[in-house]
Amino acid sequence: MDLDKARQELMALQRKMAAYGHAMGLIYYDGCTGAPKDTAENRAVTLSILSEEVYRLSTGDETVALLEFLDEHKDELDQAEQRMVHLLLKEIRDMKKIPIDEYIAFQELLVRADDVWHTAKETSDFELFRPLLEELFATTRKFALYIEPDRDPYDHCLNDYEEGLTQKACDAFFSKLRSEIVPLLKEVAEHPQVDDSIRFGDFPEDKQEELAYYLMELIGLDLGHVGLSTTEHPFTTSFGSHFDERITTHYHRDDFVCSMYSVVHEGGHALYDTGSADELAYTVLDGGVSMSIHESQSRFYENIIGRSRSFCRLVFPKLQELFPEQMAGHDAEEFYHAVNKAQPSLIRTEADELTYSLHIMIRYELEKKVMAGELEVKDLPQEWNRMYKEYLGVDVPDDKHGVLQDSHWASGLIGYFPSYALGNAYGAQFLAKMKESVDVDGCIGRGDFGPVNDWNRERIWKHGSMYKPVELLERVMQGKFDPDYYIEYLRSKIADVYGL
Amino acid sequence: MDLDKARQELMALQRKMAAYGHAMGLIYYDGCTGAPKDTAENRAVTLSILSEEVYRLSTGDETVALLEFLDEHKDELDQAEQRMVHLLLKEIRDMKKIPIDEYIAFQELLVRADDVWHTAKETSDFELFRPLLEELFATTRKFALYIEPDRDPYDHCLNDYEEGLTQKACDAFFSKLRSEIVPLLKEVAEHPQVDDSIRFGDFPEDKQEELAYYLMELIGLDLGHVGLSTTEHPFTTSFGSHFDERITTHYHRDDFVCSMYSVVHEGGHALYDTGSADELAYTVLDGGVSMSIHESQSRFYENIIGRSRSFCRLVFPKLQELFPEQMAGHDAEEFYHAVNKAQPSLIRTEADELTYSLHIMIRYELEKKVMAGELEVKDLPQEWNRMYKEYLGVDVPDDKHGVLQDSHWASGLIGYFPSYALGNAYGAQFLAKMKESVDVDGCIGRGDFGPVNDWNRERIWKHGSMYKPVELLERVMQGKFDPDYYIEYLRSKIADVYGL
Repeated sequence: MDLDKARQELMALQRKMAAYGHAMGLIYYDGCTGAPKDTAENRAVTLSILSEEVYRLSTGDETVALLEFLDEHKDELDQAEQRMVHLLLKEIRDMKKIPIDEYIAFQELLVRADDVWHTAKETSDFELFRPLLEELFATTRKFALYIEPDRDPYDHCLNDYEEGLTQKACDAFFSKLRSEIVPLLKEVAEHPQVDDSIRFGDFPEDKQEELAYYLMELIGLDLGHVGLSTTEHPFTTSFGSHFDERITTHYHRDDFVCSMYSVVHEGGHALYDTGSADELAYTVLDGGVSMSIHESQSRFYENIIGRSRSFCRLVFPKLQELFPEQMAGHDAEEFYHAVNKAQPSLIRTEADELTYSLHIMIRYELEKKVMAGELEVKDLPQEWNRMYKEYLGVDVPDDKHGVLQDSHWASGLIGYFPSYALGNAYGAQFLAKMKESVDVDGCIGRGDFGPVNDWNRERIWKHGSMYKPVELLERVMQGKFDPDYYIEYLRSKIADVYGL
Repeated sequence: MDLDKARQELMALQRKMAAYGHAMGLIYYDGCTGAPKDTAENRAVTLSILSEEVYRLSTGDETVALLEFLDEHKDELDQAEQRMVHLLLKEIRDMKKIPIDEYIAFQELLVRADDVWHTAKETSDFELFRPLLEELFATTRKFALYIEPDRDPYDHCLNDYEEGLTQKACDAFFSKLRSEIVPLLKEVAEHPQVDDSIRFGDFPEDKQEELAYYLMELIGLDLGHVGLSTTEHPFTTSFGSHFDERITTHYHRDDFVCSMYSVVHEGGHALYDTGSADELAYTVLDGGVSMSIHESQSRFYENIIGRSRSFCRLVFPKLQELFPEQMAGHDAEEFYHAVNKAQPSLIRTEADELTYSLHIMIRYELEKKVMAGELEVKDLPQEWNRMYKEYLGVDVPDDKHGVLQDSHWASGLIGYFPSYALGNAYGAQFLAKMKESVDVDGCIGRGDFGPVNDWNRERIWKHGSMYKPVELLERVMQGKFDPDYYIEYLRSKIADVYGL
């Protein structure tokens, strides 16, 4: 084989994979947005066929021969090509360990599970979802053992979303977090609670949508390449390349803050994805490198920027313009306090910064136990409710507000949740570093996101998946990850909001 | 090869083609509906790759060997399988005559053309669209000659949408129509014109959307399988099978009648598609057999049913409920007259039944001349405007309201337009036949679409593409196609509306 031709074929292979990714991603997205309600079966038929095509393309003899040839000549490849070959070979070697019929059956299961989960959540009917969730956990476990027979299956899952992450590392991180958060929460409980009535009322969807577009433009998204739609559970996705990105939100008519911060959160994901260097488009290096780096960006914009006093002051006039009656008699300082109210609650996506990680810890503990065979899926609701009482002190009224609230398991994302908590912690350390060269508060106060975005783009976004997460982190942090930055950040935020 | 295995492979092949069709159709649909505005190039990349995959799948040695084997054993196949093999072989043999790089380039051209046409129409800038339109006509001509070197290229195009149709047949049909319509129009002009002020005013989009869903349910569409969205130019499409159908509309805030009848029109297409027998799903026999039979159904629901006095009376109370102020002081009889006003105008999709065919004739004559090399694309706007003056007596103010109004050419649909006029004429003959066994006016008056839909389903819809269009027509009509039914229908409608 000729090396130059092989390099061209490497690019062609990735473009083909991106095309299938585009098609399958869009079919999923359509199912969450515009599709008529009884069409899930039809999508399952198509997705099962396309995923079989992808499987054959990825694991076919021609592809394997190409990649192995390139791997043998890796010293003659540039750094990006080396990384592409490494990532593709790893994925293919993993994939080849899964029998094709089981792989296809799993793709079909994902479509059905997502469909059933929607209904189950709506009707708060865990029993409806249970058989699918059992199959999802069982298959995830089985696949983990196919790929790494000698590794703990849940460690394998964690590693899928964050290269190198283990239960041991999570246990240490979470136990440190918990030991800091619990006393802080106790202190908060002893102080007068924040009045957050400003967020509640009647906020028409069209005005909330106007706010969403305003925020997307404000934080620097290019609306020519980033779309907004509504779904049950907000998410971000890209189609084929970072040139076509979509975020979604969910409007709650009685509380505009939910969608508002959801848009800033998903907007952070979209900034990261669309910030990939253009030459990475249609390759496996396009878009974010890991879930926790992704969450570090989304939660950086949502919380560190979005819930800062400067940001609240910046956007308050827009809120007054869109909701003149509802905002009458309120001011930016009240809004700042309202969106930073720390209070144990039921729903993860609506949790404040302080209690958020406790929601994650519960999911982590439950996944760990189910994957280890120490907890049966049928007992998940009961255990969920017990842990919410223990960790957060709240009573779960039904499974809709409990174990059925998140879409992750229905989408097969087991091992994903810890990324959120890690992302929070990374973001706080990034902020400290950023402040060495950028007047963050000053920029936000002026509505000038340029310097903040440029800092992130240069250090994080443009690299796509070029570096391993840990490499990228240490380049950005110019040192090791240290959760103390996050704990310090939380402490000073809570001190400010509650006047501790 | 084993025959039973070959039969199974025939079904698997068609499912695979349906899956690609689903993916590519959805990517196109997304481009017209939710996609951010600068993402066309990204879709073009994906579509070019997927169409290459389809090309290779369809024309690959394995597929050809399978179909030729089945063709040799056709006496042992059932009727449906025989028809599948016939249609697939024909398509593949045609396709193989087009060099793959030209085929792929054409798919890319279609994506670009559609994108540029949108902008060109918006800004009324024909010059922007001209180079793409030249390429579209040139490629259509070239492909026609690849496939049938000895046939007139435009006859080939006509045949693509209606098996057996020729310019000779169109010329005869259109000349007869024109000789009947022109004197009728003259008579109308000599009578007092109908007052159609009822349709104009301020009609909020959300109310028009409510009306759209009401109409979809009224005419018998299953909303669990048929979705509604908005696009610049309304159309109907299905994804993978008739189990997932979408129609689109365009709301004009100042005139609710446009979207109202557009929804009934597209709803007719959707009734036809979704009426295919379920066992035809995921095969080439699923959905309508030809464009003119399709238009016979869409225009049957839009005009013959939708603009009948019974239908106008049936829906008027809903109009009063949705638009109480706008409908105050008006009645159903006024509405019936307003939606049947016959008057030469600029826009085909908004034309009345009487002048509609004149719009089609102009497009037919222009396509014929460009395909024959007798007219250059650059001269299309001028010739368009000249013919509108000659045929309809109207002055075209700009290309947005002239040559750029329809999406067909931008989508590569050259030779499609005559289907509309033929469809009108078929529908009138179907109506005469239907009335022999169904009390059509009585059913519509009661809002009971069951007997009408059952008649169409049994005779037309359920067969999908099982029969050739002409076979299907003659089964339904129990005789030959006769345009006099249509002329008689127009005469009596005009006589009723204008009291001639």
